[in-house]
Amino acid sequence: MELAREELAKKLKEDFPIFKTGSFAYLDNAATTQKPKQVLEAMEHYYHAENANPLRGLYELSLKATEAYEEAREAVAKFLNAKESAEIIFVRNATEGLNLIAYTYGRAFLQEGDEIMLPVSEHHSNFIPWQQLAKEKGLKLHFLEPNEEGIITEESFRAVLNPKVKLVAMAQVSNVLGSIQDIKLFAKLTHEIGAVFVCDGAQSVPHTKVDVQDLDVDFLVFSGHKLYAPMGIGAVYGKKELLEKMPPFLFGGEMIEYVTKEGATWAELPHKFEAGTVNVGGAVGLTAAISYLDKVGFSFIEEREAELCAYLMEGMEKVPHVHIVGSKDPKRHHGIVTFTIDGVHPHDIAAIFNSNQVCVRAGHHCAQPLMKFLGTPSTTRVSLGLYNTKEDVDAFLAALKTIRGVMGYGE
Amino acid sequence: MELAREELAKKLKEDFPIFKTGSFAYLDNAATTQKPKQVLEAMEHYYHAENANPLRGLYELSLKATEAYEEAREAVAKFLNAKESAEIIFVRNATEGLNLIAYTYGRAFLQEGDEIMLPVSEHHSNFIPWQQLAKEKGLKLHFLEPNEEGIITEESFRAVLNPKVKLVAMAQVSNVLGSIQDIKLFAKLTHEIGAVFVCDGAQSVPHTKVDVQDLDVDFLVFSGHKLYAPMGIGAVYGKKELLEKMPPFLFGGEMIEYVTKEGATWAELPHKFEAGTVNVGGAVGLTAAISYLDKVGFSFIEEREAELCAYLMEGMEKVPHVHIVGSKDPKRHHGIVTFTIDGVHPHDIAAIFNSNQVCVRAGHHCAQPLMKFLGTPSTTRVSLGLYNTKEDVDAFLAALKTIRGVMGYGE
Repeated sequence: MELAREELAKKLKEDFPIFKTGSFAYLDNAATTQKPKQVLEAMEHYYHAENANPLRGLYELSLKATEAYEEAREAVAKFLNAKESAEIIFVRNATEGLNLIAYTYGRAFLQEGDEIMLPVSEHHSNFIPWQQLAKEKGLKLHFLEPNEEGIITEESFRAVLNPKVKLVAMAQVSNVLGSIQDIKLFAKLTHEIGAVFVCDGAQSVPHTKVDVQDLDVDFLVFSGHKLYAPMGIGAVYGKKELLEKMPPFLFGGEMIEYVTKEGATWAELPHKFEAGTVNVGGAVGLTAAISYLDKVGFSFIEEREAELCAYLMEGMEKVPHVHIVGSKDPKRHHGIVTFTIDGVHPHDIAAIFNSNQVCVRAGHHCAQPLMKFLGTPSTTRVSLGLYNTKEDVDAFLAALKTIRGVMGYGE
Repeated sequence: MELAREELAKKLKEDFPIFKTGSFAYLDNAATTQKPKQVLEAMEHYYHAENANPLRGLYELSLKATEAYEEAREAVAKFLNAKESAEIIFVRNATEGLNLIAYTYGRAFLQEGDEIMLPVSEHHSNFIPWQQLAKEKGLKLHFLEPNEEGIITEESFRAVLNPKVKLVAMAQVSNVLGSIQDIKLFAKLTHEIGAVFVCDGAQSVPHTKVDVQDLDVDFLVFSGHKLYAPMGIGAVYGKKELLEKMPPFLFGGEMIEYVTKEGATWAELPHKFEAGTVNVGGAVGLTAAISYLDKVGFSFIEEREAELCAYLMEGMEKVPHVHIVGSKDPKRHHGIVTFTIDGVHPHDIAAIFNSNQVCVRAGHHCAQPLMKFLGTPSTTRVSLGLYNTKEDVDAFLAALKTIRGVMGYGE
C-alpha cells in the first residue's frame, strides 16, 4: 500500500467528527457514509444564517435560501456533467428518484405489451418499481443474469434486446457484488432500438467520476447520504427533452404555473417535479459534500479504494472457509466485498464483528432476487469509504479470523 | 399585552441562533419557521455520534440510529395522540403526505362516479392531488366556499354532502385566512356517510394542540419545517385499519417482506410506506422540536399568538387603505393575517417591508383558487411564530405606515 495515500486517508478521517467518539472500524459505507465537518458546518451555517422558505420569498433571507438551493443544483449538474441545472431534480434519495421515473415516465409512456430489461442483481429500489409498473400496465420484464464476475455481458444483453423493449434499468455498480457495468455500451444499444436507459448511480457516484453526457444515459439517480452528505437529499438527472414531456409526480406548491377549479398547468423545469417546501438544508449539505469530494478528487478515491480493497481481499483469501462472492479482482469491486463463511450465519458474523467494534452489514442487502440467483439467503458485506485506513481493514481481518472459532468450530 | 408573556417570547427568541445574525422581524412563519439551538444541537449530535443506516444493521451505531428514528416516531405519535406509533409514516413534507394518500388510498379505493369534497380555500397541496385523481379516475369534485369569516359552515357542508362522497379533504387552519375549521364536526358528518376524512394539519399543528383521536380524522399530515424542525421531514398520521389495507406508495428497500422475480409482499406498518434509506437526521431534529414545543406548551403558544395577533390587527386597522382579508377577530387567525393595500401591488409591499428588515410573504400563497374566489390575484401575509415579540410587530406596523407614501401616494 502506498504510504502517501495511507497517510492522506488518515488525515481525511480527522475531518469526520464521528471517528473521534471511539475506536471502531466503519465498513458499511455502501449503506451510508459518515459526514465530514465541512458538510455539518455548511448545514449549521445555513440554519444559523440563511434559513427561509425559498423560491417565492421577496425578502433577503428567502433570496439567500433560494440562492443556496439553486447553487446546490448547479453543483450537482457540474458534478454529473449535466448540460444544464434544470436537468437536476432534488428528491429524498435514489429510491424516490427511481419511483419518480417509474410513476411519471413509466406510467405515461409505457403501454401494454411493452418490455423492460433489468439485471436480476438490482437493488429492490430499481426492481420493485418496474415490477409494479409491469403489473399495472401489462408489461413484460426480462431479467439479465450477471456472469461469475458480476458482469452483464454484451452478448447476454443483445440476446434479450428486441424492439418491444422500451426501457432498460441498471445499476452502474452493484450494491452486493461491487461490479461495474458498461453503462455507456448498454445505453448506446438501448438507444439503437429507441428505448430509454435508467441508471441507478447510488453505488457508483460516490466512488467514480460519473459523466451523464459521456455515458449518455437518459436518467440517473443517486443518494446524498451515500456521498458524505446528510440524509434526506438525493437527485434525479434526466435529459431535458424527456423531463419536459413527462407529467409531474407530486402535486402541490411551487410546481404549478396556474391552478383553477377546473385544472392546473405546470411550472417550468426543474420546479415541475419539486412539490412543496424543498429541503434547502439538505441541499446545502450536498453542495458541501460535492465540494469535499472535488477537493479529495476521484483519482485519489479510486486508487485508494482499489488498493485498500486489494489488501482486504488478499487478507480474506488467507482465512479458511471464507468465500468472496463475485470477482476475484479487487478492481472489479469498487470497495464492496460480499462474502460467506462456511457454517456460520451472516447475522452471527455481523454480531461477532460488532463485538470487535467492526461495522459490517449482513442480510439480503435489499437484493433478494440476486440472493436467490446466487443460491444463498444472505451474505455479509464489507464496504469501504474514502476515510478507511489499513487499520480498519486489519481490525476487520483480525475479527474475521476468530469467527469460526467463536462459533465453536475447531480449526 | 401581558408583560410576562412578552418577556418569555423574548427569552425564547434567544434560543434561535439566526436572530443573533442581525436585527430583522421574521414574520413569515406560515412559510417556514426558524430552528432553536436545541433542534440544531440534536441533529449535530446525531451526525457526530450516532449516524448509520438504521433498521437492518446489527452493529451498535446502526442500532443507535434505529432507536433514534423510532423514538422520533413515538414522539410524533404522542404529540398527535395517535393510538400507536405504527400509525405514523415519515415523509418529506405535508405535500408528499397528501400525495401519498391520494396515490394509495385514492387510487385503490375511489371509483368512477365517486365524489370528493374540499374547500376552495385549500393550499395547492391539498387541491391538485385530488384534482388529478379526479381526472384519472373520473371523480366529481365539490368545492366548499368559506364565509366572510373564512369558515366552512355546517350548513354549507351538509348542503353538499351526499352518499356518493367518498373522501373529504380539508385544512384545519387556512394558510391564507388563518381561519380554523370545525374538523371534529366535519369528520363526524363524513363518517356518517361512510367516507374518509383527510386533514391538512400543516398550519394547525404548529399553533394548537392537535389530537387525532379526539378529532377522529382518518388521515392528518404536517411538515416539520413549519414546526421549528429541519426541512426534509414531515409525517402522515393514518388510522391503522386504513393504512393496513392501502397499497404502498414508493417501492424499494425496507418496505418489503419478500421479493422474487414474480412479485413482492410488503413489510408491516409503518415500514410499508417508507422505502429506501430514511431521514434519521431529520427525524431526530423533529423529536427535538416536539420536545421544545412541549416545554413551551401550547397554552402559552395559543394565548401568546392570539394576543400578539390582536395587537397586530389593532395596529393595522389604524392604517388607512389597509384591508385585512377574512375575520376581524384575532382569535380566528392563528397568527396569520393576510391583507391588501389600496393601489399597491403585494410584490411592492413585500419589497418595501424587506428594505425595512421585515420579512413577510406576497403572492398567491399557493392558493390560486382561493385568490380567484376572493377576487384578488395576490395578497400580502404576515404570520407569527412563538418567538415573535411586540418589537417585531412594531417594526412591521412602522413600515406598513410608510408604504403608500413610498409608492408616491400623498395622504
